[in-house]
Amino acid sequence: MFREILKDVVEDTPGALGGVVMGYDGITVESYASPPSDQITVEAVGMEFSVILSQVRTATQMLEAGEPEALTIRSSSLVTVFHLLDDQYFAALTLGPDGNPGKARYLLRVHAPRLREELR
Amino acid sequence: MFREILKDVVEDTPGALGGVVMGYDGITVESYASPPSDQITVEAVGMEFSVILSQVRTATQMLEAGEPEALTIRSSSLVTVFHLLDDQYFAALTLGPDGNPGKARYLLRVHAPRLREELR
Repeated sequence: MFREILKDVVEDTPGALGGVVMGYDGITVESYASPPSDQITVEAVGMEFSVILSQVRTATQMLEAGEPEALTIRSSSLVTVFHLLDDQYFAALTLGPDGNPGKARYLLRVHAPRLREELR
Repeated sequence: MFREILKDVVEDTPGALGGVVMGYDGITVESYASPPSDQITVEAVGMEFSVILSQVRTATQMLEAGEPEALTIRSSSLVTVFHLLDDQYFAALTLGPDGNPGKARYLLRVHAPRLREELR
């Protein structure tokens, strides 16, 4: 089911390269990439940022700014949208520089309850 | 000059609470908040995330994804848009949950060259 949800999100987001559901320990639950050659990129991005995401959780709680929900990181060649699912897992979508991160963020939010249900 | 630029960005962004130019060491160069009571929030957010931002720089370089440019963090009560100015400084804008982070990101990018010039 994870794979179907990730596939839907990736294929409905202009410019998306792939999606992943991952733990903050950097271990992949499931990933989907289109074309499949981008799978390495998607999982590498998730791994590099997994520790940072758990620090973002801590920082947001310190600031009493409510539960952290989403994080977008933009560099010159890649945009990544993270959606924090719970205290153990997150979903991420990588996009090319001309992708639509707003759509990615929206679709991840819409599908988050189904992803959370699958993780139970 | 920092203050004038931050004031322009904050006042032109719907829902903005304040802006700051800060080092990755968490030391404020300049901040502007409207109303002034939000100054504490803006500087606290910058400080909490300053270390995370320097890790984002490292992670992006590891991934060979080009220079990191912008980062948006959204929680249930606060949205913060960060623009990485160089290897020492960043600018950040905090917004309420109904603010316009797209406008914030755009204005920070437009004003980044002037901020960089001031930092020299």
